[in-house]
Amino acid sequence: MNYSMIIYITGYILRFQAAFMTLPLITSLLYREKDGYAFLITMMLCLAAGALITRKKPSNKVFYMKEGCVTVAISWIVLSLTGALPFTVSGSIPNYINAVFETVSGFTTTGASILENVEALSHCMLIWRSFTHWIGGMGVLVLLLSMLPLTGGYHMSLMRAESPGPSVSKLVPKVQSTAKILYIIYFGITVAEILLLLLGKMPVFDALCTAFGTAGTGGFGVRSDSIAGYSTYIQVVVTIFMILFGINFTFYYLVLSRKFIQALHVEEIRYYLAIIAVAIIAITVNIRGLYDNIGIALKDAAFQVSSIITTTGFATADFNLWPGFSKTILVLLMFVGACAGSTGGGIKVSRFLILCKSIRKEIVIYLHPNAVKKVKMDGKSIPHEVVRSTNIFMSTYVLIFAVSVLLISLDEFDLITNFTSVAATLNNIGPGLEIVGPTGNFNMFSGFSKIVLIFDMLLGRLEIFPMLLLFSKNTWKKF
Amino acid sequence: MNYSMIIYITGYILRFQAAFMTLPLITSLLYREKDGYAFLITMMLCLAAGALITRKKPSNKVFYMKEGCVTVAISWIVLSLTGALPFTVSGSIPNYINAVFETVSGFTTTGASILENVEALSHCMLIWRSFTHWIGGMGVLVLLLSMLPLTGGYHMSLMRAESPGPSVSKLVPKVQSTAKILYIIYFGITVAEILLLLLGKMPVFDALCTAFGTAGTGGFGVRSDSIAGYSTYIQVVVTIFMILFGINFTFYYLVLSRKFIQALHVEEIRYYLAIIAVAIIAITVNIRGLYDNIGIALKDAAFQVSSIITTTGFATADFNLWPGFSKTILVLLMFVGACAGSTGGGIKVSRFLILCKSIRKEIVIYLHPNAVKKVKMDGKSIPHEVVRSTNIFMSTYVLIFAVSVLLISLDEFDLITNFTSVAATLNNIGPGLEIVGPTGNFNMFSGFSKIVLIFDMLLGRLEIFPMLLLFSKNTWKKF
Repeated sequence: MNYSMIIYITGYILRFQAAFMTLPLITSLLYREKDGYAFLITMMLCLAAGALITRKKPSNKVFYMKEGCVTVAISWIVLSLTGALPFTVSGSIPNYINAVFETVSGFTTTGASILENVEALSHCMLIWRSFTHWIGGMGVLVLLLSMLPLTGGYHMSLMRAESPGPSVSKLVPKVQSTAKILYIIYFGITVAEILLLLLGKMPVFDALCTAFGTAGTGGFGVRSDSIAGYSTYIQVVVTIFMILFGINFTFYYLVLSRKFIQALHVEEIRYYLAIIAVAIIAITVNIRGLYDNIGIALKDAAFQVSSIITTTGFATADFNLWPGFSKTILVLLMFVGACAGSTGGGIKVSRFLILCKSIRKEIVIYLHPNAVKKVKMDGKSIPHEVVRSTNIFMSTYVLIFAVSVLLISLDEFDLITNFTSVAATLNNIGPGLEIVGPTGNFNMFSGFSKIVLIFDMLLGRLEIFPMLLLFSKNTWKKF
Repeated sequence: MNYSMIIYITGYILRFQAAFMTLPLITSLLYREKDGYAFLITMMLCLAAGALITRKKPSNKVFYMKEGCVTVAISWIVLSLTGALPFTVSGSIPNYINAVFETVSGFTTTGASILENVEALSHCMLIWRSFTHWIGGMGVLVLLLSMLPLTGGYHMSLMRAESPGPSVSKLVPKVQSTAKILYIIYFGITVAEILLLLLGKMPVFDALCTAFGTAGTGGFGVRSDSIAGYSTYIQVVVTIFMILFGINFTFYYLVLSRKFIQALHVEEIRYYLAIIAVAIIAITVNIRGLYDNIGIALKDAAFQVSSIITTTGFATADFNLWPGFSKTILVLLMFVGACAGSTGGGIKVSRFLILCKSIRKEIVIYLHPNAVKKVKMDGKSIPHEVVRSTNIFMSTYVLIFAVSVLLISLDEFDLITNFTSVAATLNNIGPGLEIVGPTGNFNMFSGFSKIVLIFDMLLGRLEIFPMLLLFSKNTWKKF
């Protein structure tokens, strides 16, 4: 294990963290909020520690998958622990475990909150909360890769460990250029959303925070009623952008490279849009009796479906009050998740496609044990390793889910609260049902349960294995 | 597809069905119940149809996995549809869908009932209900294999399709002898239980029905309060026999062959017993406050844990009223299930062992992509195909589960009722939570939902694929 390299990169992460906090610091100056000092202190600490660690470049450049995973896992933990400091230092969230929960929820783009009243926070705290979504959405190591020319090692492993989906493809041969392109697309669509929100007369501060929350598919809002209080125009804009940020970013790259036909043939995106359409129609029909006219029912159904499948977690309606059929659809969408290579969480549409195709293949093999059949996607056959790890991913996912539900059930809340709390955190969504529904929060859980859920959010964001590896003795033993 | 052979075997299944009904017929004569005529009519029908079909032996003996699966699936459907006739003909269960639900629940050893008051049924109906558990437990095609010397084809496929677990091993080289040995062990342990129950002064009729329900890990009782009304001695005997019937029958064969050391080294059984022990201790500690003394808490915890993990479904306590932690443990045990090669349902302990081991292997591969590592069980490495199909089994299971919950959610019952209804039927357990809890029943569901649950029980008993193949176009097309 190349410890010096891992520590060196962590040092850079600390320096990046300090840079990120300039945004809330400036906000505090603009709004003349004294909470800003909390960011100043944290920035100093991060810069000092970062400078100390990155003083000299390590000579050993060996960097494999093992180092990549450990670096990513440790970076995310460091990012969360330092990101939580301003909340506690300023007294906005006095309990440090709560502050870490809120920060992890931000960076992992979950959007689950422990705050009873979000409107009591100062502007600089609110924008920091939302900004963590934006940073976590595309990934901080992807950002680091796009800026630092790390040479001499297999740095694709960093990207593989941080990017969502069953497999990662480089858009262009160089890792650094791929990371740069991804961030440019990400930045571009975010700016487009901000402009469209401003056009709808949304205040600048709200537009920035909402766009950060949409882009990272996070879900932290600045108002207690999330997006429900804004105009229909704004709700529609947010709906569309949630869907856009749930699409595989390869699609945008193909469109930018004018490879339109190739872009239109991405199987995952077609199924993703089809699932959204079917779910919206089914829910609209199911809830139409609760609304004055079918238009409003459609608008609310579309918003909630997009918010849940992309694992954003914004809300314009309390779906806790919807009929069981609609609630069941939403709970199932919690698991489906968005496309691989997007900022969304969940299990991912492409994983389900691979699963369905491997089930079909299994049926053929069951009937004809000697048949040779390949699992194909987008016309190309998927490597056997991807199919295998997708299936094992599912099994691991189910086991982690079960253990988490068991652990938090010690708090003695009802089964639906427990089940959907884990679903909402492991899939990086935000709200669940019952006590943790769109109008509720996660504050009532014990410290132990909060730690379990913090762990679930990190497992979900890093797609289980990089985080799990940290606890495997195989990682730390010499091979 | 060798249709003539499939139809021929189905004919034999009908003749077996007629033979099975002699037991309720004799019971009706002993108790002088006029309901007996319903069995007589059904027997006539089955015999006539069976004789007609098996008139001449098919000349084409080709019999592969495909034929095996289709035969098993069709046999189980035929068995259920004819087995339900006496209930409807006699007027005991006037609605035929309800009667089929009850019969499928019997043969698949689920034990989920639509009856509001089981004590209103006549003795012959009660013993038929319980006897279907005994028949379904070891499997009717295994019985057929043990009696008919089917030659010239790969008849192991019948056994593979009907026996539970990730892989089936022949105890002895000949399929017919293996089937015979299994039935002898099954019969022997059942008789032992009956004798022990009679020793505890249980009425003969109750002892027979209870033993059938335990042996098949079914769970239909003859009293409204299931086993709660019987003495502590009887409850302990039933607890022990539920655990015994959840053990892989290979163990008993090894013991009978005096291969004690080999028997003690079966990994699955050690984990199975360990899970039971841990669950009993955890629940006893959790519920001790609800009981006068810890002994009763222990007895009830042991009974319910054994009943759920072996997927039997008998009850001595209404666990709906237990604290959330205990309920969560029971819900998780619903999925674990018993050992492969036992009469129990669920996902099976050995599948979870294979999953955990393949996750461990995946971690090593993740770290060292070129490492070669085998998944081992009982000291032998498991064929790659078994590992693959176990993982795909899990994925398929999860998808079927999700679709089932969605379909029955149209009835607008609460999420826990829906979730545990599917868990209780797909895992062949019987009771779930809330409306379908130990003191409830499945009668309130619509006809459509009942059909979905009937299908889930059959999918669960035949371990998904043989049943699923019936609906795949691959099965019916020429290869």
